Amino acid sequence: MTANDTTRYAFSFHDGDGHDKQLLGGKGANLCEMTQIGLNVPPGFVITTEACLAFLDSADKALPEGLLDQTRAEMVALEQATGKGFGNADNPLLVSVRSGSALSMPGMMDTILNLGLNKETLAGLIRQTGNERFGYDAYRRFIQLFGKVALGISDARFDEPFDALKLREGIKADIGLSAEHLREISETFLEVVRVETGKPFPHDVYEQLEISIKAVFGSWTGKRAVDYRREFNITPDMANGTAVNVVTMVFGNMGSDSATGVGFTRSPATGENAMFGEYLVNAQGEDVVAGIRTPKPVQEMEQEMPEMYRQLVDLRNRLESHYHEVQDYEYTIENGILYCLQTRNGKMNAAARVRTSVEMVSEGLVDREQALLRVDPEELEQLLHPRLDPNDTSVPVTQGLPASPGAASGAVVFDADRAELLGRTGEKIILVREETKPEDIHGFFAAQGILTSRGGKTSHAAVVARGMGKPCVAGAEGITVDTRNRQATVGETALREGDIITIDGGNGNVYLGEIPTVDPEFSDNLHTLLEWADAVADLKVMTNADTVDAARQASEYGAMGIGLCRTERMFNATDRLPIVVDMILANTTEEREKVLQELLPIQRGDFKDLLKVMAPRPVTIRLLDPPIHEFLPSERQLEQELSHLNQLRSTVEGMNDLAGAMRLLHAEQTDAQALPTPFNPSGAELVDAAIAKKKLMLHKVRELFEINPMLGHRGVRLGLTYPEIYAMQIRAVLEAVAECNREGIEADAEIMVPQVCTSEELSRVKEIVDRVRQQVEAQYGEPVNFKFGTMIEVVRACMRARRLAEVAEFFSFGTNDLTQSSFSFSREDAENKFLPFYNETGILQDNPFEVLDVHGVGELMRITLEWGRKARPDLRVGICGEQGGHPESIRFCHHIGLSYVSCSAPRVPVARLAAAHARLTQDSYVLD
Amino acid sequence: MTANDTTRYAFSFHDGDGHDKQLLGGKGANLCEMTQIGLNVPPGFVITTEACLAFLDSADKALPEGLLDQTRAEMVALEQATGKGFGNADNPLLVSVRSGSALSMPGMMDTILNLGLNKETLAGLIRQTGNERFGYDAYRRFIQLFGKVALGISDARFDEPFDALKLREGIKADIGLSAEHLREISETFLEVVRVETGKPFPHDVYEQLEISIKAVFGSWTGKRAVDYRREFNITPDMANGTAVNVVTMVFGNMGSDSATGVGFTRSPATGENAMFGEYLVNAQGEDVVAGIRTPKPVQEMEQEMPEMYRQLVDLRNRLESHYHEVQDYEYTIENGILYCLQTRNGKMNAAARVRTSVEMVSEGLVDREQALLRVDPEELEQLLHPRLDPNDTSVPVTQGLPASPGAASGAVVFDADRAELLGRTGEKIILVREETKPEDIHGFFAAQGILTSRGGKTSHAAVVARGMGKPCVAGAEGITVDTRNRQATVGETALREGDIITIDGGNGNVYLGEIPTVDPEFSDNLHTLLEWADAVADLKVMTNADTVDAARQASEYGAMGIGLCRTERMFNATDRLPIVVDMILANTTEEREKVLQELLPIQRGDFKDLLKVMAPRPVTIRLLDPPIHEFLPSERQLEQELSHLNQLRSTVEGMNDLAGAMRLLHAEQTDAQALPTPFNPSGAELVDAAIAKKKLMLHKVRELFEINPMLGHRGVRLGLTYPEIYAMQIRAVLEAVAECNREGIEADAEIMVPQVCTSEELSRVKEIVDRVRQQVEAQYGEPVNFKFGTMIEVVRACMRARRLAEVAEFFSFGTNDLTQSSFSFSREDAENKFLPFYNETGILQDNPFEVLDVHGVGELMRITLEWGRKARPDLRVGICGEQGGHPESIRFCHHIGLSYVSCSAPRVPVARLAAAHARLTQDSYVLD
Repeated sequence: MTANDTTRYAFSFHDGDGHDKQLLGGKGANLCEMTQIGLNVPPGFVITTEACLAFLDSADKALPEGLLDQTRAEMVALEQATGKGFGNADNPLLVSVRSGSALSMPGMMDTILNLGLNKETLAGLIRQTGNERFGYDAYRRFIQLFGKVALGISDARFDEPFDALKLREGIKADIGLSAEHLREISETFLEVVRVETGKPFPHDVYEQLEISIKAVFGSWTGKRAVDYRREFNITPDMANGTAVNVVTMVFGNMGSDSATGVGFTRSPATGENAMFGEYLVNAQGEDVVAGIRTPKPVQEMEQEMPEMYRQLVDLRNRLESHYHEVQDYEYTIENGILYCLQTRNGKMNAAARVRTSVEMVSEGLVDREQALLRVDPEELEQLLHPRLDPNDTSVPVTQGLPASPGAASGAVVFDADRAELLGRTGEKIILVREETKPEDIHGFFAAQGILTSRGGKTSHAAVVARGMGKPCVAGAEGITVDTRNRQATVGETALREGDIITIDGGNGNVYLGEIPTVDPEFSDNLHTLLEWADAVADLKVMTNADTVDAARQASEYGAMGIGLCRTERMFNATDRLPIVVDMILANTTEEREKVLQELLPIQRGDFKDLLKVMAPRPVTIRLLDPPIHEFLPSERQLEQELSHLNQLRSTVEGMNDLAGAMRLLHAEQTDAQALPTPFNPSGAELVDAAIAKKKLMLHKVRELFEINPMLGHRGVRLGLTYPEIYAMQIRAVLEAVAECNREGIEADAEIMVPQVCTSEELSRVKEIVDRVRQQVEAQYGEPVNFKFGTMIEVVRACMRARRLAEVAEFFSFGTNDLTQSSFSFSREDAENKFLPFYNETGILQDNPFEVLDVHGVGELMRITLEWGRKARPDLRVGICGEQGGHPESIRFCHHIGLSYVSCSAPRVPVARLAAAHARLTQDSYVLD
Repeated sequence: MTANDTTRYAFSFHDGDGHDKQLLGGKGANLCEMTQIGLNVPPGFVITTEACLAFLDSADKALPEGLLDQTRAEMVALEQATGKGFGNADNPLLVSVRSGSALSMPGMMDTILNLGLNKETLAGLIRQTGNERFGYDAYRRFIQLFGKVALGISDARFDEPFDALKLREGIKADIGLSAEHLREISETFLEVVRVETGKPFPHDVYEQLEISIKAVFGSWTGKRAVDYRREFNITPDMANGTAVNVVTMVFGNMGSDSATGVGFTRSPATGENAMFGEYLVNAQGEDVVAGIRTPKPVQEMEQEMPEMYRQLVDLRNRLESHYHEVQDYEYTIENGILYCLQTRNGKMNAAARVRTSVEMVSEGLVDREQALLRVDPEELEQLLHPRLDPNDTSVPVTQGLPASPGAASGAVVFDADRAELLGRTGEKIILVREETKPEDIHGFFAAQGILTSRGGKTSHAAVVARGMGKPCVAGAEGITVDTRNRQATVGETALREGDIITIDGGNGNVYLGEIPTVDPEFSDNLHTLLEWADAVADLKVMTNADTVDAARQASEYGAMGIGLCRTERMFNATDRLPIVVDMILANTTEEREKVLQELLPIQRGDFKDLLKVMAPRPVTIRLLDPPIHEFLPSERQLEQELSHLNQLRSTVEGMNDLAGAMRLLHAEQTDAQALPTPFNPSGAELVDAAIAKKKLMLHKVRELFEINPMLGHRGVRLGLTYPEIYAMQIRAVLEAVAECNREGIEADAEIMVPQVCTSEELSRVKEIVDRVRQQVEAQYGEPVNFKFGTMIEVVRACMRARRLAEVAEFFSFGTNDLTQSSFSFSREDAENKFLPFYNETGILQDNPFEVLDVHGVGELMRITLEWGRKARPDLRVGICGEQGGHPESIRFCHHIGLSYVSCSAPRVPVARLAAAHARLTQDSYVLD
């Protein structure tokens, strides 16, 4: 870089362009902006990044011509503004010197405070303040910071003599050091500098300043800074060179008309529009950090320093009206003058962010779009779950993955049956398992929360818990679960059934004992904000819900319908599973149809309830999807059960011990159905019946065995091999619609077919649908309306979208399965095996089961939409996979023109806001 | 349809357009063509399909106006041509009447022979021939055929009295019937017609003809014909209405100057260009069928009827020079006049077809393209395998699926270890298993053939056997295998180890005992034909080969390189598996690298051998693909082994019985490595060592367990988690290349990465490759050249083709895996569960693991090619899945512009010819 001698390298805070971060650095630009909007910032100036680059480019690392002259001129201006003199022993001007590039960047040079001190000016400072200790303290700090930062002397060289002195004097905290101690250490530090650099500590204040400027410039190409920029891919167009900020030191410890404080323009805890903050009279910021004095709430300043308080309120108002955002600011009052040292956008919790968004709109500070954009969708989920009392300070005993948000306490229970039993007594329960399976579902219903020692964020436990909105900590590997003996160990601690624990699904923490929680609230402000979001968004937000409770909750959260109701979840309920097992064991179509007749009224009732709750919004009902062996216990489990039963059978006592047999069989409701009729069995008969049933089940489990069950006999494949199952489910849906119609309820049902890979499959199911529809319409004597569509979760379905759209009225992307077969990653296996490695080593940036893989799966989706809408231009297309509730994924869904996303109830608010964000930021969306 | 009275409905064979099958039907057009090229066809005429449609359209099912007049005119012409009279008692003209639509179609009306007979003409016929029996036989046949075909009387009504008469007279065969018997039965048949129709049998010959014509026309809309057309989707543009052929009857049994015969213009057995056929003097075709007289080879006619033989040779020459194809023809000689009754393209075996193709080119009868197109690629595989002696008449004991072609006999063996042991003694073996697994691989090497009772055409057994070119019958469900007791049962028969059986992998038959086979030959003619094919084809044909033997064979068959060498197949050899197991059991990278050092020279040797055999053609080496647990026994098997070992351990005798322990452990070479050193163990030590090892293995198997192994920790996922494994394999390849270079061998190696789903994976493997390349080049002091590419078998790879092509120099579609994840069908599961149902019910037309699914998987391939070549226009793209050897799939591959297909050695000739066909028929290729 070349710059002629007319180049301007130094800008007073009054002159610098507050928006030119490239030239002035982020901090410098900010100080300029604050100054120019009339805030009383301590006078100062910025030396530009351009000067830095010229310095680095020069052969002999020389400051560019003219820079020193400009610096002197700015220092003179500072002297005029403050009435002090740089190096003046009577009224010394002290400054801080700090780096600042366009991006905040660790590894850059630290701050040097109190620059301008030497023996003479120090004496002046002590005279002025009448505080010798303050003076020497400032001096020794300056020497150490300058020594370290500008001269490159290791901290240890200063810390060693400092610690030695404290040891000698028997002093623990720095505050115990007297003025004399600090004087002595200052002398020692000066000697350290002399020894380390071979030169005395610079006495001349301009020399101090020049050395500091060069050191800041040089730090830009230091190892740490270069490594950092490489690591985070910071290219020159993002930040090139560092600026240097030179700012007048102000002191809050100049007497009772001085103070220091921090504040938020609104409460970051509640969002309330009121003064918020703390201050200390006659103190420095460090005093707050050291914790020796307790700061006072800012409200007390109104009495103590009324004029200062008035100025502070004024400052707050100026900040908000300028930044249109809640500010987190620092100030110092020196001899009755209020200086604003720093301001930045305030961090706050979700509730506060929502409240301030809504209120700032009504105050006219921001418009609705700005209000929407200042809330991170992900934060909203916090608002929907109980949280641990923020005041509690308990220490977690172990940690797992935050698999489903919310906090819960309860008695430890190790199996679903016990959970259900104890749950009925009203006891609060945490279900603790190594991992969960579909047959544990009744345990989920009974439990307050779920804790597993294995599995990831998309494990069965996590997905089901999220679906139910219950807290879940998954994969807490510090816990060893011994289900058989009903106990677990965490480190040294043994957990037995009934012991109370608390889990926090928001961060994965697990605590022993009960910890108080605070309840969630879906505030009016949140409602308001999300209504604005809906008005802006193109994407509709539906919910994945299988139960009336989940549907109701989603409804409260603003779901515009059910996008996915998994009918098999209904099969797993305790009172139904035995019927489902009988259906599976049936040897003939007739037997199966007989059992299905028992399921029909149950499913019809389920569907009717859901349709009622959601009316007139749509309810999308997916026909049976999983391989049926999922409804049976595992081969190993059955073998073990059989072995136990056989042992019991061979014991003579067991044969007559009806009570013992009953105990053994306690939770095996399935066996009750196999009992001899009339029911008057001996223990032996009971056990024999149980053995017979188990043998049948074992035989079936072996027959159904699949090497790759995810790619197996499931979904529509199952539905076409056993058409009577789908026929029953379709009938249940249509009869539910017909009954709603009779009751005057506007039911909007949609039937959705899973695992479709060819249009022929869809056509065959359509034939069943048409046949059943005719029958139901004849039976109820009126038309039954509904829609017919398909999941798109098999890759081939994407390729055949055009043909499928000829039959289907809507598509719903099942991105869990689609991700699985696009990557050829089995979800359960991948998350336990190589996926963490892939994420850690950056082969994959995200877990594609959590965040939609827009380049692979997304591309398939884009093609599918394009081709599907060629056949049916008004084709409604949604997504109902896990990723449907993820903001980044939602942005992509909006981008390709999806009609809706469907997600679990607690993600509905997140998705509504994310859909609005997607719309508002669509112009800046780029697929890299 | 309307037609005015000038419409011509009847065409003499001299007039009809031999190419207008729609108007004249296939048979009619053929007869016209034969007549018009000067063959002596019995005079006749065709009544058009147009007349048929007019008849069917008419309200009262009336023949269109003018038809009967035209028919009479044609009959008069026949009388003139033959000198006989229709209904003339002195010299009666008899005709046959038969249907014939544009497509040959079962369910249409049969032939009526001898039409024109009645009491008077019959008497004339008897007088003319002097053969009363012949006369009545012709008469009773006519009455039955007319009764059945034209009058719709059931065959049973005729068969009953006919059988009763034979019973009464004690006569078994029709030939035993005298003239008097036949006269009596004729009378009875006339009575049957009278009773059934309520009218006497029509005496008037024109009435006979008119009734027959109407009956033929009516049969077009008969139930059988309509069903057939619906079943096979025959639309009116393919065939609409039937024609009627009226042909003069000629008789070969008119005396010693009459004869009947059939012939091929060349030998259908060998393809030799010579007269081929049989004849009988003074006989009718039926006599040949009845088998009462043995026909003579046509060569004898040269002596017996020299003039006739000359005419026959002339006929043969005319046929070939007109049809440019081997003809299968029928003729009759009536009173010294040769009539050609029929000709059609001759069916012949593959060897004959190849020979005739090549010879007809040199004779100038066809050009090379025609020669190529007249051979069905699928047939060629017959030529590459031993076949059962076609003269053997043994009856199969059961049948399975024809999983890998060829025939083999050998002693039954039930496990791979025994197979290997016995194989070493030189015994011929058939390995019989329920199904096979990768650890059975040494059994495959030892066996002549493989027979399984479970699994489909793409089961492990089938795929591996095809890869090795060994016969395999899979899924022979009639066999129950009891491996434990080393026996099997087929129906009533028990098979014990050592019993001899024969399998025919070409048709799935299984025989007891040994059946002689004939060896294959890869003839000069086949070489010639396939060279022509290569010259025409755009697609290159490579082979999938893992062994030097397979490579050599493929080379003989003309493979242009190895498109897929599965390195893991090399891991399975008996002497390597123990090392691989140690590699898996290794707990640290260091341990693993130590074991890998043992594998390095072995793999290097393998690769070097392959490179040498194929030089200078490319050898594409795929890095390790399957999940590593495939190299370990199953959990259950290990548990059983451990249980056995523990039993042995607890037996005092066992402890000292070294021999017994050795026996138990006989095949467990893995354990030898765990033995105490020096090797002087007691039985107990031996067993303890084995137990320790098995426990380790069991632990590992459990740790490696995956729910969906096809989608699990395999391929590049494994290669990146354990980079030392890939590094070893890459080093082995590059060192092999370097060593070849030193020996002056032009090695062309390609390294291929499996299961890639993101370009980052490929880049990381590329980093390993580059590092190893540097090391090897330094080591050998010269550059090592090779190519680097990727399998495309994961759907996401298709979507990222453009990015992958930036790193990969070639793509190879793994359509087995791609099909699996496109359909979400697990191959093993699907073929045992729902896929047969899907094929049977027509939900899917084909098994997509055998025939490429062009609409789904094909579409993915098309997109991949398009996008990949955007990044790298010269990207070489092949296919190495099972489907790569299938002609229909090859047509598609050509269509989308693939560079090559790779298939198992025995499919190479098939693929070469299919590639030529694909090129030659490309203009007619349509994706429906």
